[in-house]
Amino acid sequence: MSLLDDKFAALSTENAPGQEVRQSAGDFRQLMIGEMLPGRVVDFSHGDVDAFSPPPEAIERFTEAVRIGGRQAYTEYRGSADIRAQLAEKLGAFTGAPISPDAGLIITPGTQGALFLAVAATVAAGDKVAIVQPDYFANRKLVRFFGGQVMPIAMNYLDKSDGAGLDLSQLEAAFEAGAKVFVFSNPNNPTGAVYSPLEIERIAALAQRYQATIVADQLYSRLRYDDEAYTHVCAGVDENLCLTIMGPSKTESLSGYRLGVAFGAPDIIGRMEQLQAIVSLRAAGYNQAVLRSWFDEPPGWMATRTTEHQHIRDEMLAIFAAAGFPTRRPQAGSYMFPTLPRLKVASLDFVRLLRHQANVIVTPGTEFGPHDQSIRLNYSQDLRAAIDASHRIVEMVARYRA
Amino acid sequence: MSLLDDKFAALSTENAPGQEVRQSAGDFRQLMIGEMLPGRVVDFSHGDVDAFSPPPEAIERFTEAVRIGGRQAYTEYRGSADIRAQLAEKLGAFTGAPISPDAGLIITPGTQGALFLAVAATVAAGDKVAIVQPDYFANRKLVRFFGGQVMPIAMNYLDKSDGAGLDLSQLEAAFEAGAKVFVFSNPNNPTGAVYSPLEIERIAALAQRYQATIVADQLYSRLRYDDEAYTHVCAGVDENLCLTIMGPSKTESLSGYRLGVAFGAPDIIGRMEQLQAIVSLRAAGYNQAVLRSWFDEPPGWMATRTTEHQHIRDEMLAIFAAAGFPTRRPQAGSYMFPTLPRLKVASLDFVRLLRHQANVIVTPGTEFGPHDQSIRLNYSQDLRAAIDASHRIVEMVARYRA
Repeated sequence: MSLLDDKFAALSTENAPGQEVRQSAGDFRQLMIGEMLPGRVVDFSHGDVDAFSPPPEAIERFTEAVRIGGRQAYTEYRGSADIRAQLAEKLGAFTGAPISPDAGLIITPGTQGALFLAVAATVAAGDKVAIVQPDYFANRKLVRFFGGQVMPIAMNYLDKSDGAGLDLSQLEAAFEAGAKVFVFSNPNNPTGAVYSPLEIERIAALAQRYQATIVADQLYSRLRYDDEAYTHVCAGVDENLCLTIMGPSKTESLSGYRLGVAFGAPDIIGRMEQLQAIVSLRAAGYNQAVLRSWFDEPPGWMATRTTEHQHIRDEMLAIFAAAGFPTRRPQAGSYMFPTLPRLKVASLDFVRLLRHQANVIVTPGTEFGPHDQSIRLNYSQDLRAAIDASHRIVEMVARYRA
Repeated sequence: MSLLDDKFAALSTENAPGQEVRQSAGDFRQLMIGEMLPGRVVDFSHGDVDAFSPPPEAIERFTEAVRIGGRQAYTEYRGSADIRAQLAEKLGAFTGAPISPDAGLIITPGTQGALFLAVAATVAAGDKVAIVQPDYFANRKLVRFFGGQVMPIAMNYLDKSDGAGLDLSQLEAAFEAGAKVFVFSNPNNPTGAVYSPLEIERIAALAQRYQATIVADQLYSRLRYDDEAYTHVCAGVDENLCLTIMGPSKTESLSGYRLGVAFGAPDIIGRMEQLQAIVSLRAAGYNQAVLRSWFDEPPGWMATRTTEHQHIRDEMLAIFAAAGFPTRRPQAGSYMFPTLPRLKVASLDFVRLLRHQANVIVTPGTEFGPHDQSIRLNYSQDLRAAIDASHRIVEMVARYRA
C-alpha cells in the first residue's frame, strides 16, 4: 500500500480545525509555564453558530421539504432544478456574470464538496496548480491528492498596499511554467484580505492569456466591511475558464446543513456532477431547500450581522495591536491571521497549550502554508467571549515569548 | 486534458438512476410501436418515499439537533462522538462483530459517501479489484476513477442454487492474480440475492488467506423476507481486513437526509476520515442526529415494512413469471432484475421508450455489468401503481419483441 501511504500522509487532519478533540494532550504539562488561565472555552477554529444563529427561515424551508417528500428527497445529482433556477438568478445578479441554471450551476454538500469536485474535475496527475500562500489548507491537500504539483504564489498580506498583496509576477511565472489551474479564496482565508479590482483584473487577464482555469472560492464574499469594493473574477473572464464557489455555511451560519454551490464553466460543472454521482450522489435533498431563502434574509439581517462582526474585529485588532502582533485588518469575512513573536515552544505545542491551559482553540498557521508564527482565528463569536479569549492569547504569548 | 477526459469518460451518468430528466427524448417517436400506454408515472429507479415514508422520529431528531446548535453543527469529521457510540453498540449487536466507537466507525454523507471513501482508502492506481457481475454500478466506476483494474467475478443469480451464485473459483483466481480488494453488495444490488452462510464463509476464508480487504455494502441487510438467513462477512474475518457499509436511505426511506456509516478496519476508517475532511468535511451535522432513532423504530414498524414489500415483490414476480421473464426471487431489499426477451430495439432505446411511451422509469441492466437484456426495478412503490406499471412493461415487451 505504499502508493496509498504516500497519498494519505499528505492528508493529515491532525491539526485541522474541529479535530482538536482527537489530539492527545501529550506532555503539554511539562511545557507549561505558569498557572492555568481560566475562562469560557472559545473555539476560534470555526464560527459559533450559537452566538450568530442561522436565519429563522432555514428550518422552515427544511421541514417544508420533508413534507413535500420524494420530489425533494431525490433530486438530480447537480441538485433540484427549481432551486438551481432561483440560485442562478440570485447569484448571477450578485456576481454580475449570467449563470445558466441548467448547465452552469451545481449544488454540493458544502463549499468543501464544491472545492473537492472542482479540483478533481480540473487537475490530473502531474498538472501544475498555482496556490496562494497563505490560503485555505484544503486547496493544497486536494491538489496533492490528485497527483498535481503545487506552485506557491506569495501574498504579501501585511504590506500596506491597496490590494491583497498577491505577487502577480509569481503568478505569471507559474502560468508560463505550465500551471493550468489557479485556485484562490477571495476574501482570503486566513487573512480576510480582499483582492483589489486591479488585482482581479490582472488575474483574469493572465488566465485568459494562458488559457488557465480559475477556481475562485468566494465563501465569504457577502460579509464585507465599510462597503469594501469587491470584484467577482468570473465576471471578467471567459465563462469556460472560471468557476466560482460559494455557500451559506459561514456568514449565514448554516454549516450544519452542509450546502454549497459552484457556478460558471459548464464543462467543469458537467464533470463535477459525474463525480458527485459516485462521491455522495447529491447534497442532502431536504437540505437543498434551505437555499431557497439564501440571499433572501429579512431586511437588515445582513447589515446587522456585518456591523456586529466589524465590532468584534475592531476590538480584537486593538488588543493584538497593543500587544505588537502584526495583523492584517480583515476587509471581509470573519478570519484574522495575527503573527506572533518568536516563542520558546514549537508553534504546534503553543496551539496545544492555548487549548489546554487557556481554553482557547485556534488553527495553527502551518495549515495555510509556511506560516508557523501565525494563528488563524474565526471571530464569528460572542463579543465578550472573543475579547476575553484574545486577552488570554496575549497573556500566553507573554509567558512563552522567546 | 486528455488524462482527465479518459477519467471522466468512465463516469458517465447519462443512464444512471435519477438522471433520466437530463436525457433528451431523442428520436424515440420514430422507434415507437403502437399508441401511448397511459398510466401514473412509476419511477422504479429508486424507492418512492411518499409510498413508504421515513419513520416519524426522523424530523424530530433533526429539529432537536438544530435547537442544540453549534455542538451538533460542527462535529468531528468522522461524526458526532455520542452518536457514534450509540451506533457502535447497535451495529455491533446487529452484525455480531464488536465495533470501537472511537476508532472503528465513521458517519458519511449517505452510503455512497462511505463507498467512495472506502474505495479511495484501499485502491491505488494499478491495483486489481474483484467486482461482482452484476453489482452496483458505482463499484466499477469508483475503482476505475482511482486507476484500479476491475476483475469481474460472475454471479449466476438465476441458478436455483442455495446461495447468491457467486463463482468462488473466479474470486480465488482473482486473489491469486493479485487482487487486493473485493467489493460486493449483500443483499446483491440489482438482484436481491442474499449470499448463503457457506458463500460468506468461503469469501472470508479467501480474504484471510490472501490478506485481501473486503468492502461489504450491506445497505439492504435489514429488510429480509421469510427470516432469510443472513451472514455478516465482517464477523468472520480479521477486523483489519473488512469494512461494512450501511445506511438508512433505503429500507428506512431516509435518503433525503444523506446518511451512511462505515465500520470495521480502524486503519481504513482513519484514512476515510482524512479524505472526508477534503471531500465534504462531514455528514451534515444536524442530519447526523437522525441516526439516533435508527434501529430504534416503533415496535412492528420493520415487520410491517417487510411484509408490505414482500407483497409487492410477489405480485410483480407473478406478472413477470406469467410473461416468461426469468427473474431471481429477491430474498431481501427491494430490487428486482428481470431478464427480458430479445427486442427489436436497442436496450437503452427500450428504456427510453418505457419512460416516454409508458410512464415507467427503470434502470438499464448495462449499468450493473454486461447485462443488456435486464432492467433493474426498485419496487419500494405504491402497490397498485407498481402492479399497473409491471403490466405496462409486459405489454411494451410484447410490442417490441424481436
